[in-house]
Amino acid sequence: MTAAKPNPYAAKPGDYLSNVNNFQLIDSTLREGEQFANAFFDTEKKIEIARALDDFGVDYIELTSPVASEQSRKDCEAICKLGLKAKILTHIRCHMDDARVAVQTGVDGVDVVIGTSKFLRQYSHGKDMNYIAKSAVEVIEFVKSKGIEIRFSSEDSFRSDLVDLLNIYKTVDKIGVNRVGIADTVGCANPRQVYELVRTLKSVVHCDVECHFHNDTGCAIANAYTALEGGARLIDVSVLGIGERNGITPLGGLMARMIVAAPDYVKSKYKLHKIRDIENLVADAVEVNIPFNNPITGFCAFTHKAGIHAKAILANPSTYEILDPHDFGMKRYIHFANRLTGWNAIKARVDQLNLNLTDDQIKEVTAKIKKLGDVRSLNIDDVDSIIKNFHTEVTTPQVLSARKNKQNDSDVPELATIPSAKRTKPSA
Amino acid sequence: MTAAKPNPYAAKPGDYLSNVNNFQLIDSTLREGEQFANAFFDTEKKIEIARALDDFGVDYIELTSPVASEQSRKDCEAICKLGLKAKILTHIRCHMDDARVAVQTGVDGVDVVIGTSKFLRQYSHGKDMNYIAKSAVEVIEFVKSKGIEIRFSSEDSFRSDLVDLLNIYKTVDKIGVNRVGIADTVGCANPRQVYELVRTLKSVVHCDVECHFHNDTGCAIANAYTALEGGARLIDVSVLGIGERNGITPLGGLMARMIVAAPDYVKSKYKLHKIRDIENLVADAVEVNIPFNNPITGFCAFTHKAGIHAKAILANPSTYEILDPHDFGMKRYIHFANRLTGWNAIKARVDQLNLNLTDDQIKEVTAKIKKLGDVRSLNIDDVDSIIKNFHTEVTTPQVLSARKNKQNDSDVPELATIPSAKRTKPSA
Repeated sequence: MTAAKPNPYAAKPGDYLSNVNNFQLIDSTLREGEQFANAFFDTEKKIEIARALDDFGVDYIELTSPVASEQSRKDCEAICKLGLKAKILTHIRCHMDDARVAVQTGVDGVDVVIGTSKFLRQYSHGKDMNYIAKSAVEVIEFVKSKGIEIRFSSEDSFRSDLVDLLNIYKTVDKIGVNRVGIADTVGCANPRQVYELVRTLKSVVHCDVECHFHNDTGCAIANAYTALEGGARLIDVSVLGIGERNGITPLGGLMARMIVAAPDYVKSKYKLHKIRDIENLVADAVEVNIPFNNPITGFCAFTHKAGIHAKAILANPSTYEILDPHDFGMKRYIHFANRLTGWNAIKARVDQLNLNLTDDQIKEVTAKIKKLGDVRSLNIDDVDSIIKNFHTEVTTPQVLSARKNKQNDSDVPELATIPSAKRTKPSA
Repeated sequence: MTAAKPNPYAAKPGDYLSNVNNFQLIDSTLREGEQFANAFFDTEKKIEIARALDDFGVDYIELTSPVASEQSRKDCEAICKLGLKAKILTHIRCHMDDARVAVQTGVDGVDVVIGTSKFLRQYSHGKDMNYIAKSAVEVIEFVKSKGIEIRFSSEDSFRSDLVDLLNIYKTVDKIGVNRVGIADTVGCANPRQVYELVRTLKSVVHCDVECHFHNDTGCAIANAYTALEGGARLIDVSVLGIGERNGITPLGGLMARMIVAAPDYVKSKYKLHKIRDIENLVADAVEVNIPFNNPITGFCAFTHKAGIHAKAILANPSTYEILDPHDFGMKRYIHFANRLTGWNAIKARVDQLNLNLTDDQIKEVTAKIKKLGDVRSLNIDDVDSIIKNFHTEVTTPQVLSARKNKQNDSDVPELATIPSAKRTKPSA
């Protein structure tokens, strides 16, 4: 079966095969995402989403199987005719009936999937590994004969027998499949397991490895990242992660992860400032809100609150930010209207209001703000009023002298701020 | 500095120190969570949340520093007096002023933190590592002298110098700190990096390791899991992950991850069916919605839609579920009112409606449903109407005979379902 005799003492391919700086995105909002409970995309909406994803720069767009319904087939054909830069894929079962329909839609490639876990073999299609291999070879050779790309993926790969998996991947690699896929269909995989499986697979096949991770146990982004470290090349994503159950690796969340690891590659390849618009487009279409804690676009993703955080962020944003909001067309926000605030945050607000107060005066007004913040929730207007009143008090001569007389019986509580803070200019 | 001479040829502690089956939770909703943009908890709400967390079974509850504000101190004292099973901690800067206040509140332990990254050393407190070590020793010895637990944590650990970190951890371990903490303060860490750092740290210290992960790049759950694999014992969580920016490892999401890895331990220790109530309590208090894709409690976490998924789930839920919704007091839902539906899902609905149709009849009505689902979004009533009308048609003799006559010119499209599906009884 092996073409060239491997040298067991040579460096292992996995050691230098990280694709963190060289990955591709397969967006499946219009396939996996259509399996999200709330999703119903009409043709017009599908085209709008496909165009937005193409503009963002995804490498592939995956569509629902043309045999799922008559309209699914027509929509697939319509999107193929748009002339997008992204390659168009459709996703079918490992069956000639499906393959025959798929290759006639005009797609650039076909993603074939079959369940290989004992669960799916027993309760879904009821076939053994020999049957799976035979069908796979037939479908792959047929699709290849039409001159379009073909991916073969197992389903529920992490609950499949490793030897079965490697056997079938080796078989399909040998007949020239473009990619093999690993799918964590139930969302059970953990990062170190992913790394091991991808590395092992990369030592068996020559083609690219694509990975698909569900998010049931919250690891879909981390698993995708670790798969790239292990040598996978392509990651399946969807906008906001929509898909079966609670979905898959989200496009935006993965971009947050990848920009940290490969900033130049990510910024040169993808229009990151479009993420917010694409998420809003899809969220509207499936009638959900952007989660409050969504990476990048969640309402507080770049909000800093505790005094100690605000102080450092004002000196240099890198202190408490690994992501620069400007890379995504977003802005940071220093939350100063609360009892955890510190005098550095209030000083920044005083500057914004264009008022003149000494550091000691700012510390004094900060204490007043914190005291009120202990009693109730504050908003910006509350704080601005306190600051402005205080400013009037200390800058109006007659008020000032009256104030000085009662300085000793002040009811201001002790400050919880670091004593000798010196503001430094941001270096970045 | 080392007490016993280590044998460099012995098995490394990290090899057998996974704590996946033996972890503890430090819930920080009332500390980190108070730093969430929308959070303002009054005393009553704090007590309600603390009691709910205690009932759930968290091992520790961490509270905002008593020097943050006067009310913060009073609330800390009030919660200490509740007599909860969970140990109460407060979280302070590495400073004697803070420590003196903290030990008087009645807490069971004090969590001390100081920034060790070059960013925080330069732009936050401006101190060098010698100063940090000196303050740490002073604070730790003082807190220990009061007979309460003490944790020492670095801040922004993953951007700190490794040698600096190991030096300070070794120093504080030697003087008998209860736990050392690693904090991914900016959310930059990835799982394999976490695993390496925790393992290395475990080879240097004898005490427990606690980990705190922010979620800026979507890896907070995976990093927590991988930290436990590497030998960490305690994970910081908050309800819904609320905290600075988009927060930290969420309690519910981590439970989803851990129940997969350590089902007996998790089920015996934590009241998992309380997660939904606790999340609702906190979501209401901070005025956010549960994210649509939240692990466990998101509205679609246990919803199955595509025909092929629904079919297998009906045969055996383990096919497409790694989490059992019943473990969390939740239910699964088979979404059948859409164009991706299959005849197995419709058959299940026909059974629920207590109607009698043959498999061939169900395939026929499924085609009608998919056809309508191609034109517009369907709801359950739409599908039920189609099924009931069809049932009337096929069971009313005169309608039936009229129907048979036009059987040949039927406009029903071809079905996209697997031909010879056999339902099997669920094994679990």
